[in-house]
Amino acid sequence: MNVASDTIVALATPGGSGAIAVIRLSGTDAILITQKIFKGKDLSQQASHTIHFGTIRDGEQIIDEVLVSLFIAPHSYTRENVVEISTHGSAYIIEKVIKLAIQHGARAAKPGEFTLRAFLNGQLDLSQAEAVADLIASHSQASHQMAMQQMRGGFSNQLQQLRNELIHFASMIELELDFAEEDVEFANRDDLKRLIYQINQVIHNLIASFEQGNVLKNGVPVVIAGQPNVGKSTLLNTLLNEERAIVSDIAGTTRDTIEDEMILNGINFRFIDTAGIRDTQDVIEAKGVERTLDKMKLAKLIIYLFTPDQDLSSIQLQLQQLQDLKIPFIALMNKSDLISDEQSSLFDKYAFISISAQQKLGIEELKSAILEKVNLAKLSTDGVMVSNIRHLEALQKTESALSRVLTNLDSSIASDFLASDIKQALHYLGEITGIVTTDDLLENIFTKFCIGK
Amino acid sequence: MNVASDTIVALATPGGSGAIAVIRLSGTDAILITQKIFKGKDLSQQASHTIHFGTIRDGEQIIDEVLVSLFIAPHSYTRENVVEISTHGSAYIIEKVIKLAIQHGARAAKPGEFTLRAFLNGQLDLSQAEAVADLIASHSQASHQMAMQQMRGGFSNQLQQLRNELIHFASMIELELDFAEEDVEFANRDDLKRLIYQINQVIHNLIASFEQGNVLKNGVPVVIAGQPNVGKSTLLNTLLNEERAIVSDIAGTTRDTIEDEMILNGINFRFIDTAGIRDTQDVIEAKGVERTLDKMKLAKLIIYLFTPDQDLSSIQLQLQQLQDLKIPFIALMNKSDLISDEQSSLFDKYAFISISAQQKLGIEELKSAILEKVNLAKLSTDGVMVSNIRHLEALQKTESALSRVLTNLDSSIASDFLASDIKQALHYLGEITGIVTTDDLLENIFTKFCIGK
Repeated sequence: MNVASDTIVALATPGGSGAIAVIRLSGTDAILITQKIFKGKDLSQQASHTIHFGTIRDGEQIIDEVLVSLFIAPHSYTRENVVEISTHGSAYIIEKVIKLAIQHGARAAKPGEFTLRAFLNGQLDLSQAEAVADLIASHSQASHQMAMQQMRGGFSNQLQQLRNELIHFASMIELELDFAEEDVEFANRDDLKRLIYQINQVIHNLIASFEQGNVLKNGVPVVIAGQPNVGKSTLLNTLLNEERAIVSDIAGTTRDTIEDEMILNGINFRFIDTAGIRDTQDVIEAKGVERTLDKMKLAKLIIYLFTPDQDLSSIQLQLQQLQDLKIPFIALMNKSDLISDEQSSLFDKYAFISISAQQKLGIEELKSAILEKVNLAKLSTDGVMVSNIRHLEALQKTESALSRVLTNLDSSIASDFLASDIKQALHYLGEITGIVTTDDLLENIFTKFCIGK
Repeated sequence: MNVASDTIVALATPGGSGAIAVIRLSGTDAILITQKIFKGKDLSQQASHTIHFGTIRDGEQIIDEVLVSLFIAPHSYTRENVVEISTHGSAYIIEKVIKLAIQHGARAAKPGEFTLRAFLNGQLDLSQAEAVADLIASHSQASHQMAMQQMRGGFSNQLQQLRNELIHFASMIELELDFAEEDVEFANRDDLKRLIYQINQVIHNLIASFEQGNVLKNGVPVVIAGQPNVGKSTLLNTLLNEERAIVSDIAGTTRDTIEDEMILNGINFRFIDTAGIRDTQDVIEAKGVERTLDKMKLAKLIIYLFTPDQDLSSIQLQLQQLQDLKIPFIALMNKSDLISDEQSSLFDKYAFISISAQQKLGIEELKSAILEKVNLAKLSTDGVMVSNIRHLEALQKTESALSRVLTNLDSSIASDFLASDIKQALHYLGEITGIVTTDDLLENIFTKFCIGK
């Protein structure tokens, strides 16, 4: 894909009205086009990274008083000339300014086109560009930290270095092919093996990190199960409200709240809606409820809620069935304030946590139990994790190509087979950072971005 | 109200995720506080209106790669030191950066506090500050242009100048009071009269402009009346969809769509929901439907919709009743494609427009008729209009104080009565631009702003 040289324009801040909005232009003519609708200083004479006050005009009509920020190529996000016009955050003004820019030669940007240009111009590699989208979408500390690591280089630096070493061997082996009749070995087979083991170790760790990375990125799926009226909704509300209250303390950060999500210790927990599970009674005792059970199987944690007034043998049966699912679960007794001494002694032989969702008793113990059961390794700034399925697939393909190389090395197979498998491994490794890429792949990645990024 | 010297912080762009978000700090320590969480250049050594790349950090943890814009007092919106931190538009990052700023000495800004400071520091007068909120809220060309005129000075310059001349006379008359026993006239009574006539002319025009200004700002209220099933909803949808299609052409400007509003020739038309009017049959024929009629009386235009298959005498009766309301109305026949020749000749003696909402016939004629009936003067860049009820009230009070002055001048009343009424007029004139103000008034105005402005 070639870098287009035309100038693109888009709103870079979220839609809706607010104090200010930022409209971004990028391309060779970004400053020239802005100047045509801007009354103020001569922008072409100004230094990069400076801000200029003036008005945006449509002929004689003043559209807004604005601040214009200049970023002169290559010192910008896209490495092109970039102008950011900071306007009052009115829908009318935003629309008008974008229309004016288009009238004077800009083109409405496609989703992710600014970041695509940053990638094509070498400002970011592909995995870094993908991390930008993840970063914007992140709303827990864990998902944020993963995206930030990836955006700042993360594993791509390491993979890049190993790939370069592998390229060295590939060229040596190519050389051997040129001198095939002389039967020489330019590439030391032991060194090659060592390198492949080393790469495989890195790849293996990255592949292994995916399950956790994916869960951290998308939220730990949790199912709250239990018979009707045991207090599932109350429990959920209690958990959610407590955490949300902290968030809403800070004015101006109102976010699109995602229902039934909770952030605990910086990790996002996502409560799966399984309407069917509300009738757990039927679910476990009757047949034909595979669908609900399938949903439960997606969970990383099941919280099974019961109350002291339920039939004990029925609870036992259900707990046994949950245990068979081999998914971590917490047996949780709600309405603990209603328990009688007799019941208490009955329940004593079962390990369970007791709460009163209504009276908010035992909630902290429950939270600790959730964190303990899910048992996610604490993220460190060094820990590199894969959370992108595209990366996972490329890593898996690299691994199998390298495994073939190792097998062939042991069976003293001809250099050309070796060369072919090494090339495949190089290809898949290159896909991660975007050294090897196709238009389809890029389109697939960047159309998922929001417009203006 | 004194200007606080502490540093405030808020998100200045709309909530929700987007490519970028801007967090704004204002106050003496804005740069100092930013430096504490920013890793990059020494911000205290940088010039105003410059942009600096770096990272925001919480201890060792990198929160984001950001651009920091510096505005050094008094060269900023608030005339204080202002820092704008441009981050990736993630809810997590926004919340974290604001929290960090607060941890390092900033305070969460109250609604409108940035603009309040701009006013208190003399950057804007009060009517200009109020226009900022109107500007952000504006979503039609007409409301935008009114707000823009007001923000750029509008009538406040003119009023300010006239007020200054009036102050001159007030001081002359005060002087007369000091020399009361000598019976001298420092203030030429004819000149004073001329000035008051001049001021009254301006005020009169401004007061007269309010009705139109208010309608342009809040939208022209339109009621679509008619019996059930004549196609009111289809008509509304046809009108709305056509106009919305134009708006949604431009990507990235997705706005919070306000139901049942339509912008025609830059003017906003607001369709009032009068569920009761759907039963127009009962409304007009039965008693006790005052409430619905009251709503109709708020309209600047009533569109009465009927179909050819309705009883003609009933339609005639209803049209007559609408005429009695003395509100402009359009008699509109829907389903015109169903009309028979016989009906056609019957209807011919009534002036009406015929459309087919379903088949989108006659819609352009209807639009022209709407614009013609509402008959709003075209806004020019010079035309100054009052759209704020606070301004209207102050103007009305000024007018009556000045009328008393004129009456007293004619009846050769003592200078001290003159002086008192002139002072009152000066007071009310001063309220508009905020020269005369109270904490209550300011609080009342600025709490209606959004946070971050």
